[in-house]
Amino acid sequence: MTSASTPADPAAAPEWILSLSCPDQGGIVYAVTGALVALDATITESQQFGSPDTRRFFLRLQFRTHAGEEEIRAALEPNAQRLDMEFELAPAARRMRTLIMVSKTAHCLNTLLFRRDAGMLPIDVVGVIGNHPDLEPMAQFYGVPFFHVPARPDDKAGAEARMLELVDELDAELVVLARYMQILSPELTEAMGGRIINIHHAFLPSFKGAKPYQRAHERGVKLIGATAHYVTADLDEGPIIEQDVTRVTHAQSNAEFVQQGQEVEASVLARAVRWHAERRVILDGKRTVVFS
Amino acid sequence: MTSASTPADPAAAPEWILSLSCPDQGGIVYAVTGALVALDATITESQQFGSPDTRRFFLRLQFRTHAGEEEIRAALEPNAQRLDMEFELAPAARRMRTLIMVSKTAHCLNTLLFRRDAGMLPIDVVGVIGNHPDLEPMAQFYGVPFFHVPARPDDKAGAEARMLELVDELDAELVVLARYMQILSPELTEAMGGRIINIHHAFLPSFKGAKPYQRAHERGVKLIGATAHYVTADLDEGPIIEQDVTRVTHAQSNAEFVQQGQEVEASVLARAVRWHAERRVILDGKRTVVFS
Amino acid sequence: MTSASTPADPAAAPEWILSLSCPDQGGIVYAVTGALVALDATITESQQFGSPDTRRFFLRLQFRTHAGEEEIRAALEPNAQRLDMEFELAPAARRMRTLIMVSKTAHCLNTLLFRRDAGMLPIDVVGVIGNHPDLEPMAQFYGVPFFHVPARPDDKAGAEARMLELVDELDAELVVLARYMQILSPELTEAMGGRIINIHHAFLPSFKGAKPYQRAHERGVKLIGATAHYVTADLDEGPIIEQDVTRVTHAQSNAEFVQQGQEVEASVLARAVRWHAERRVILDGKRTVVFS
Amino acid sequence: MTSASTPADPAAAPEWILSLSCPDQGGIVYAVTGALVALDATITESQQFGSPDTRRFFLRLQFRTHAGEEEIRAALEPNAQRLDMEFELAPAARRMRTLIMVSKTAHCLNTLLFRRDAGMLPIDVVGVIGNHPDLEPMAQFYGVPFFHVPARPDDKAGAEARMLELVDELDAELVVLARYMQILSPELTEAMGGRIINIHHAFLPSFKGAKPYQRAHERGVKLIGATAHYVTADLDEGPIIEQDVTRVTHAQSNAEFVQQGQEVEASVLARAVRWHAERRVILDGKRTVVFS
Repeated sequence: MTSASTPADPAAAPEWILSLSCPDQGGIVYAVTGALVALDATITESQQFGSPDTRRFFLRLQFRTHAGEEEIRAALEPNAQRLDMEFELAPAARRMRTLIMVSKTAHCLNTLLFRRDAGMLPIDVVGVIGNHPDLEPMAQFYGVPFFHVPARPDDKAGAEARMLELVDELDAELVVLARYMQILSPELTEAMGGRIINIHHAFLPSFKGAKPYQRAHERGVKLIGATAHYVTADLDEGPIIEQDVTRVTHAQSNAEFVQQGQEVEASVLARAVRWHAERRVILDGKRTVVFS
Repeated sequence: MTSASTPADPAAAPEWILSLSCPDQGGIVYAVTGALVALDATITESQQFGSPDTRRFFLRLQFRTHAGEEEIRAALEPNAQRLDMEFELAPAARRMRTLIMVSKTAHCLNTLLFRRDAGMLPIDVVGVIGNHPDLEPMAQFYGVPFFHVPARPDDKAGAEARMLELVDELDAELVVLARYMQILSPELTEAMGGRIINIHHAFLPSFKGAKPYQRAHERGVKLIGATAHYVTADLDEGPIIEQDVTRVTHAQSNAEFVQQGQEVEASVLARAVRWHAERRVILDGKRTVVFS
Repeated sequence: MTSASTPADPAAAPEWILSLSCPDQGGIVYAVTGALVALDATITESQQFGSPDTRRFFLRLQFRTHAGEEEIRAALEPNAQRLDMEFELAPAARRMRTLIMVSKTAHCLNTLLFRRDAGMLPIDVVGVIGNHPDLEPMAQFYGVPFFHVPARPDDKAGAEARMLELVDELDAELVVLARYMQILSPELTEAMGGRIINIHHAFLPSFKGAKPYQRAHERGVKLIGATAHYVTADLDEGPIIEQDVTRVTHAQSNAEFVQQGQEVEASVLARAVRWHAERRVILDGKRTVVFS
Repeated sequence: MTSASTPADPAAAPEWILSLSCPDQGGIVYAVTGALVALDATITESQQFGSPDTRRFFLRLQFRTHAGEEEIRAALEPNAQRLDMEFELAPAARRMRTLIMVSKTAHCLNTLLFRRDAGMLPIDVVGVIGNHPDLEPMAQFYGVPFFHVPARPDDKAGAEARMLELVDELDAELVVLARYMQILSPELTEAMGGRIINIHHAFLPSFKGAKPYQRAHERGVKLIGATAHYVTADLDEGPIIEQDVTRVTHAQSNAEFVQQGQEVEASVLARAVRWHAERRVILDGKRTVVFS
């Protein structure tokens, strides 16, 4: 914690998240903590990483201060310019506005809505889009608006236009593909760059594309997995946020792989969404820095 | 346990391992256990699997009996013919004669020799072949003959001929590639069909071929792994025996992936060798049945 | 599979689960498979275990047959008497009637109801009892009757009487304590012997009793866990069905332990309930045999 | 990285490890990084933690600088006094002088010596003490002096005096009990406070004391584990550094628990020793902060 004690109790001050990256160079932490000390800020969490491959430096800080947003930004700006720094500043208490897209399979949606409801995911689910109507009751149970946007093969462009419209109307900061089984156009992924998270039901880069469990079963693997990643134009090639696996045996059918895999998918996706919403994930070229 | 009590104490009788496969059909277990009951055998372990894909049935039994090998085989043969069964029968106490091939990296060899020495691997290591002399002292420490067989690019055939000669001279039943970094010819893998186990330092089918850790690092995966598999003419495509993974982070270098991966490689390879030596692994097409 | 082919297609025959235990002795498998062969049964799954400590033998078979229940029982009875065998026979398609007891915490209930709804748990949830009314909406969403049975300190006996009444009325075969935070009386656990599963939010035998996460946090453990076990009169000492753990760090608070532990609790409990409902769990003294 | 670029290449400068703790208060990171900036130091790794329970702040930095040790200490001292800070400063390249104590079981010793030899553990093994002579050949193979110090029940004090003498003669900074099956006296643990690491073959606080695998087997647990901890006068109650578990089944005997557990024991102990030697472990009351 970096703060001189002040008349106002710093532990009661609002908490902020600052995440930044810049070319690696001398004096970054000193400069940033100096700016915060001048604001009587108390740092409650701090993680950093210098990437030897891209020569960029990454820093994530949580801090408490009675200073207002304008004041904080004013303190950071000169450093940001001098150090060629990109930074994001957000109140720690603000939940990220999130739009979830689904098809018919419920397990990922269930986990996201349940955890959000239990206060375990710092997101506001502003809507659920389904290309099928099946999951509307679950959205309703959790009090979330459901939008049925069919993904007709002859009108994918129309469906995507409607999605972007909803992103706009609902002011969504993040789109989560919770086993939404449609491929998005490069235009859409471009427009939403870095703000769409997908769950792929395999341990990437194994079994990219369709029917990964079936192909895993045919190959005779002994572990199956799931991968949460940012969506880019290049299918299943986006930066990986989180992965996990679960053990299977020769005695299990493809259908049993599918069932057992659901738990890992939901768990991996929920972790990725939480870390993204807490601004713990920063892009480092084609990889992610995850300050989990 | 399936045995009538007999004057001779069945718990003191020699133990046998029977592993078999045949087209799936009625009456297999009843027929085989019937043959064993007639020998006053006590079954101490039993596992079975009917493969829906290949329609083959697999059975592994351990049993104790005072009957001799000829007697046991005589009891099984009529069933084997009637049911079109392939079976292997071996004394449980017999250790599998194993030849280990290495290059310069010691971790897999160390684990195999240490565990064999500690009585944790039912193998006799009849020799270590190195294409470099570096690991000779370790082989000597464990009292195992070391053979330096250089793998010159201009004389791979000569090196492989020497290997086969050693397999023959040493009467090796199993060859383990313990990070032996040379690709074997289709002729050799053919000649040793199903009796060579390799450890690949990646979670197959991800990162087949060379430098898997480097490619895993570049891809930004969050878990790295290792795969033990039977060697076939098709590189890194052989039937998988065992796999495992370990968690990594963005903060680790490729060199740290290599170090951390060693523990998983050695662990996965040792399990695969143990299960093979205990005749717990049976081929089911391009997959394995593992009665672990 | 053990069956002669018959005019009636055996793959289309109803499937049964047979689980049994008896004193370990010769000829058990031969006798039981013989009885099934005589019924033209096809064995689809088989697991067995001879316990060296208790000298009991355990067998679980799944098989298909066109024979009716009476016929199957008639074929098994003589063996059961001769071998002093306890056995249970149930149609594989029959879902176990299950009563879930909760307090205010929803995560275990959510997982059980969701999986049952998705066809992943072979149970019928005949009711949810809550000592608080909080989880009634979730039960309603899944179409399950909810019973509010307050557990007043001054009338625990009354509450337990009402529970037993509901077990009776609803014909429940299994009671699951899904984070039901009340201790049951010895009389109740006795009456329901072996048919109550509890989830304890610690890796037993560590942190028995109250506030296990807090005590784990104070002790500075590096993994936290959960344990599903049968309830006996001796608190947290019942036979363990399943356990698992998740990694934590010094940087996590007790509240974060509680949140992170929920995923393991729900997962462990759901596995235990599935295995119990599939009759894969058999008591072996104070331990369980789990044919998972 | 925090350094102004200087004529001398900072990437070529010697690397240091600074680990410190002090009462939590404002300005710590700013003060320490400021002192380092003044030395033209480049920070290569940084981790910090403010403990809400003990209200202490912990910081570990790795940095490169051309400044000498005296100069660095001189820069830190004023801050240390002002902030009531305990700090340790060590060259990153310096390996910790380590004395390993063993009995007859080799697996932990083998893993420590092998990894040290492979450059994977930043320790110098200055000696191995055995209360039995069995492991002398392994020590010799790795070129490490072996001392046979019998632990006679009638002369424990003599044996401990000899140990302390060896610690002194060999200038050992760390003592590792690598399955050394003797209990140390409170006097010895006091004298070596915080510098003895033990591996307990159970998942503490389960199964403290003798024969943990046997008791785990009797209890019917589904996972067995190992715990590396600092030794204090209170047996198996010292601060935990690292723990891990491995899955077991009802079908495994106590002897199989013992064998399977060895891999976890060695792995957990090696991680704990590495983290300690890299000064990643700092005491926070009865718990540890582990900057792994």
